[in-house]
Amino acid sequence: MALDTVETPFAAVENVLGGGMSYFTMAASLYDAVNVVAVVGTDFPVPYLDQFKQRRTDLRGLRAEPGETFRWGARYHMDMNARDTLFTELGVFANFHPDLPADYCRAEITFLGNITPALQLDVLRQTEAGGTQLRALDTIELWIETARDDLLEVMRRVDIVLLAEEEARQIAGVSSLRAAARFILGLGPRMLVLKQGSYGSLLYGADGSFFAAPAYPLDDVRDPTGAGDAFAGGFLGYLAGRLGCGVHLAPLDYKRALVHGNIMGSFACEEFSVERLCALTPEQVATRYREFVEFTHFERAT
Amino acid sequence: MALDTVETPFAAVENVLGGGMSYFTMAASLYDAVNVVAVVGTDFPVPYLDQFKQRRTDLRGLRAEPGETFRWGARYHMDMNARDTLFTELGVFANFHPDLPADYCRAEITFLGNITPALQLDVLRQTEAGGTQLRALDTIELWIETARDDLLEVMRRVDIVLLAEEEARQIAGVSSLRAAARFILGLGPRMLVLKQGSYGSLLYGADGSFFAAPAYPLDDVRDPTGAGDAFAGGFLGYLAGRLGCGVHLAPLDYKRALVHGNIMGSFACEEFSVERLCALTPEQVATRYREFVEFTHFERAT
Repeated sequence: MALDTVETPFAAVENVLGGGMSYFTMAASLYDAVNVVAVVGTDFPVPYLDQFKQRRTDLRGLRAEPGETFRWGARYHMDMNARDTLFTELGVFANFHPDLPADYCRAEITFLGNITPALQLDVLRQTEAGGTQLRALDTIELWIETARDDLLEVMRRVDIVLLAEEEARQIAGVSSLRAAARFILGLGPRMLVLKQGSYGSLLYGADGSFFAAPAYPLDDVRDPTGAGDAFAGGFLGYLAGRLGCGVHLAPLDYKRALVHGNIMGSFACEEFSVERLCALTPEQVATRYREFVEFTHFERAT
Repeated sequence: MALDTVETPFAAVENVLGGGMSYFTMAASLYDAVNVVAVVGTDFPVPYLDQFKQRRTDLRGLRAEPGETFRWGARYHMDMNARDTLFTELGVFANFHPDLPADYCRAEITFLGNITPALQLDVLRQTEAGGTQLRALDTIELWIETARDDLLEVMRRVDIVLLAEEEARQIAGVSSLRAAARFILGLGPRMLVLKQGSYGSLLYGADGSFFAAPAYPLDDVRDPTGAGDAFAGGFLGYLAGRLGCGVHLAPLDYKRALVHGNIMGSFACEEFSVERLCALTPEQVATRYREFVEFTHFERAT
């Protein structure tokens, strides 16, 4: 959970609600209840917490520690696909140790955000006794470079790996995405999701299956920050909703989940911070889903 | 029509059959008869011509002029998405003036390859008296930079514009693809096709419609040269085949055409030169089409 300062060629905001957890939770909580584990400093604005309380979120796992909230600043280039990080101030996040309330491990899905792989492993251990059916992880370039062995170890223990396409290439040391997918799936996960930014996303199964969903064609990208986290929230939120209905997940569920990921990623880009996600209604999601069918289908069979 | 010398990190070939026309024709002639208009020098190897004669191609519009055939050399980078042009020798292409056999203008579709916009306009004039139902054009960065006014004039007179996504941005002077599409469609064409290389392709209609087809997930890209031209051949070849069946083209036909474009682009990358396209059977195309349905559909409705 973070306070973001973001500058685009067209506008700027300061100390707005940010961080992967915020985007993920705002997206996922449209589909199912989310149990949050995170840390903020005592400087964290209370109104930001209220935004979460209007959704199905359990904030018992959110700690407020003496000190400053994680802060991140970035400036986007003219084409919005590239950005420069201006500063990263870890604050209380530097000593963050996720400590799950006992009943959190009953959740059907555990999502490991991009904390250090060692902490991700620790969270997995805390959920071992519970009913988790799906374990998923995200990561960042920093851990690929500095904690590769730990990261590979977490990958061996999860069901779904979510990565940006260039992270997959970096991990596997190959340029072909298909070869990179083979390497990562060879470690153990059943599924690999590759995020391709404004090009959409790909789903690779350990069984050799493949699915591709294009990005929603946005007229105007106001701020792409958090799109990947909102994507993860839509993807896993949709799956959690299905599991909550007692559904045994089939290949079609994962395909639809990927589309919901793209939908949430697209909404995230339409405003600064989590503003668009906060204001989102299930009807607006359903409309965009129907548009996706129109944008991608060319035969009647599935 | 060209003789290509291509080097990738893994292999190299010299003076092989190349040029946009070759890739386009090899792809399109799988779907319908193609009337070729092009020029080669007297150095052009006869066996290359025989490859075309095994397909439904009419070569009466192909001239052999005294001099050298257009030659192009390039070296691909490690990631195969970037390349350096090593040389371009125009040869007889420098004085090329397309002169269409009279009955060529009976073709249902006219495709203007990436010759100068002035020559494209001239070809359009030659087909005016005929039965052309669809006029389509492709171009290259050089003409966007050096013959912009002429290029915009041709765009006003065609039905379909095919471009690489960065060319569309360059023409419209905007970074948003949707805004670029609006600009180009505002000139007059009914449809804009944007090629996105290893990310697939997009179809924008002047009526506001939109369709996206991902790229076929290739294990190994041997040589991406000509993929865009093969794409155009698959796209327009499929439409020509439909028109030949007396079909009135509907939105679904254009969507399927885009998928056939992607299929041809993917095959083109699997070997140097037009080798893979030459060896291609309708059954192999049908198999890849069925895979595309599997890769992209997540609902039963269209």
